[in-house]
Amino acid sequence: MREDLPISKLIHPDIDLAASLFTALDAATRRGRGIERDSYGAGEQAAHDILRSAAAAMGLEIAIDAIGNLSMTLPGRDRSAPRILIGSHLDSVPQGGNFDGAAGVVAGLSALSALRQAGIVPGCDITTMAIRAEESAWFDIPYVGSAGAFGLLDPACLAVPRFDDGRSLEETFVAQGFDAEAIRTRRRLHDPATIRAYLELHIEQGPTLVQAGLPAAVVTGIRGCKRFRNARCIGEYAHSGAVARPFRRDAVAATVALLHHMEAVWLREEASGADLVFTSGELTTDPAMHGPSKVAGETRFVLDIRSISDETMTRVAAEARDAAARIGADYRVTFDLGATSDSVPALMDARLRAKLMTLLDQPYEMASGAGHDAVIFAEMGIPTAMIFVRNESGSHNPDEAMDMVDFTIATQALIGLLLDFPIEASR
Amino acid sequence: MREDLPISKLIHPDIDLAASLFTALDAATRRGRGIERDSYGAGEQAAHDILRSAAAAMGLEIAIDAIGNLSMTLPGRDRSAPRILIGSHLDSVPQGGNFDGAAGVVAGLSALSALRQAGIVPGCDITTMAIRAEESAWFDIPYVGSAGAFGLLDPACLAVPRFDDGRSLEETFVAQGFDAEAIRTRRRLHDPATIRAYLELHIEQGPTLVQAGLPAAVVTGIRGCKRFRNARCIGEYAHSGAVARPFRRDAVAATVALLHHMEAVWLREEASGADLVFTSGELTTDPAMHGPSKVAGETRFVLDIRSISDETMTRVAAEARDAAARIGADYRVTFDLGATSDSVPALMDARLRAKLMTLLDQPYEMASGAGHDAVIFAEMGIPTAMIFVRNESGSHNPDEAMDMVDFTIATQALIGLLLDFPIEASR
Repeated sequence: MREDLPISKLIHPDIDLAASLFTALDAATRRGRGIERDSYGAGEQAAHDILRSAAAAMGLEIAIDAIGNLSMTLPGRDRSAPRILIGSHLDSVPQGGNFDGAAGVVAGLSALSALRQAGIVPGCDITTMAIRAEESAWFDIPYVGSAGAFGLLDPACLAVPRFDDGRSLEETFVAQGFDAEAIRTRRRLHDPATIRAYLELHIEQGPTLVQAGLPAAVVTGIRGCKRFRNARCIGEYAHSGAVARPFRRDAVAATVALLHHMEAVWLREEASGADLVFTSGELTTDPAMHGPSKVAGETRFVLDIRSISDETMTRVAAEARDAAARIGADYRVTFDLGATSDSVPALMDARLRAKLMTLLDQPYEMASGAGHDAVIFAEMGIPTAMIFVRNESGSHNPDEAMDMVDFTIATQALIGLLLDFPIEASR
Repeated sequence: MREDLPISKLIHPDIDLAASLFTALDAATRRGRGIERDSYGAGEQAAHDILRSAAAAMGLEIAIDAIGNLSMTLPGRDRSAPRILIGSHLDSVPQGGNFDGAAGVVAGLSALSALRQAGIVPGCDITTMAIRAEESAWFDIPYVGSAGAFGLLDPACLAVPRFDDGRSLEETFVAQGFDAEAIRTRRRLHDPATIRAYLELHIEQGPTLVQAGLPAAVVTGIRGCKRFRNARCIGEYAHSGAVARPFRRDAVAATVALLHHMEAVWLREEASGADLVFTSGELTTDPAMHGPSKVAGETRFVLDIRSISDETMTRVAAEARDAAARIGADYRVTFDLGATSDSVPALMDARLRAKLMTLLDQPYEMASGAGHDAVIFAEMGIPTAMIFVRNESGSHNPDEAMDMVDFTIATQALIGLLLDFPIEASR
């Protein structure tokens, strides 16, 4: 061991293990072009089996909670001290890729394997947790595994059908041998007070790191969302030739004016340094009523406002309502934006973020636009950190492509963070 | 007769006749809430029968051409001189109102009745023509009666089915006793050289006169149309949270930018005094692909550009193409506006327009946004004039509401125009 390097640079992730796990996961769960690890189905279970076998072979302690979350623990010196969790999910969307979710669990095991090979006994337990059913593609429920772990799920979710076979979450639980009662009674399966920190590595789901030429990024926070899901503009259908501009009640023109205004708001917020994403991904006139020579009497659209700051989302949503009222009056139409469906943002722990930044040779911070299990741990008041790994081609598709060099750099930072906790490390 | 008034103020339209004709038309062709005078069907024929009987009772000469256009003629002193035509159509859209079309034919008869009652023998024949099948709602063919009168119809139109019963125009002709050969051989049924002028009174199909508080308007021209019927914007679907603005290829944002730009072009053209109407009445993301948390990868939309000036339409269409290229590059998307489908504008005769303006106590000019048979007569090089009558509630619906006072004012102007032709009028 070279004495002039910090210990965080001397303990390297077990990349042979990681590579063999990715290969085994791919072989077991590829269906046609894409990966299919269906939540609480055969695909997810196959992935759990692969990770559990590897953990058992390493001598880690194995535990599975009532709803199937898999804990693989390297025991620490003080078994009663709050533990550090490294987690992510093993399920995928239909026809997804090999890395969304699995990379975080594999990183956890390759970090624990590195510590074990180096003979390090941490001061507290360190657990890699393979969390169930993070993707809401199969059951339209966010964060089944992590929310269920803390008794946060609405028991009504047991009736939600799987999108393809129509079987309810409860039926699926029973078939897999899990305990629907835990959800029905909102039972807390893990005590937040026993978790010292939650760390998650995940592939980036956008092109930012690819474009920036960087291998990894520290996540500042996970954006929440205020979404006007069912916004409408009501004007009046009219003959496009015969009705002059001052008399029109043109729903398309008014909606265009509103969306144009909101883009200007977005640019202004970005310029002032605020975190904001604004999208209208659905916008339609009524095919049963519109026509090429008609002024449109109605539009339906979505306004999707995201930020890591609740204050920013609230302010921009209020601006959208104000602009809709003003533009509605100008264009003689009525906007009905409806209620927003909200998900709260989750800020990452400031100390852990700062430490992670010191562990990257090219430190870079960015917000996460997509949701992750980390949202739930942060909501429970557990200090939470995330690191993104560069990934070509986006996620949720068969073309996910994470380079093992980038994975190694990010997992190395994760090990650095583990070693930074004020615990005794002995050889 | 008061000697201090011009003759145009002394000959009043036969409003008793007009009122009785409107009542008879309504009684014969109301079906439920609306009027149904189906082109070349029982409804239109009933209207023709009513007008023909009235004309015969007045002693007018009756003639019906090979495709059913009905001419009702007050003979002039010189029977061989080119005649003046007063025309409009008697068909209606399904569930239309009592005045769109019929008002012009009724005005013609009430003018001829006034001349006859005043003992005036005009210098040339004056014919009121009830034109067939102006509405393309039944057969999707523009101006069947007037275009067919001049041999302008494509013979292929004989195969076009009626929208409701599916019978072709040819089958319908045969059933009604008309002559499909005339259309098949593009036979000219009327010689433009024998028509000195074409005059048409029509209800306004928009709210301009209602809003302006005016009973009637002189029409400057009938707008043509350049329409991008199948415009598309192709971007790329992406996760709305995870893909930052600089990497988006957002089809909705780009389409909003284009439509916003075109509205600014419209305002600029209006400010410079140009006649222009711009509409996007169809705008849709793809329901099979879009989603509330997706950046939209595609839009489809219509751009409808109308003006009485070909130059203005051509310039604005070119600006739309330029803007689409520029905005497409800015937003990293591709616009494919496709080809335009064009209809040419028709300018009204300057001398007749000017004279009509002198005949209104509250002179007012406006363009016609909707098409009329007058387009065909103007295309044939015949001096053409139109006068609009104020009408509540728009047209093409059961709530058309023309006030007889307004109708009288407009028909009075029509009589003034007839009396202004340099022909001998004798008592």
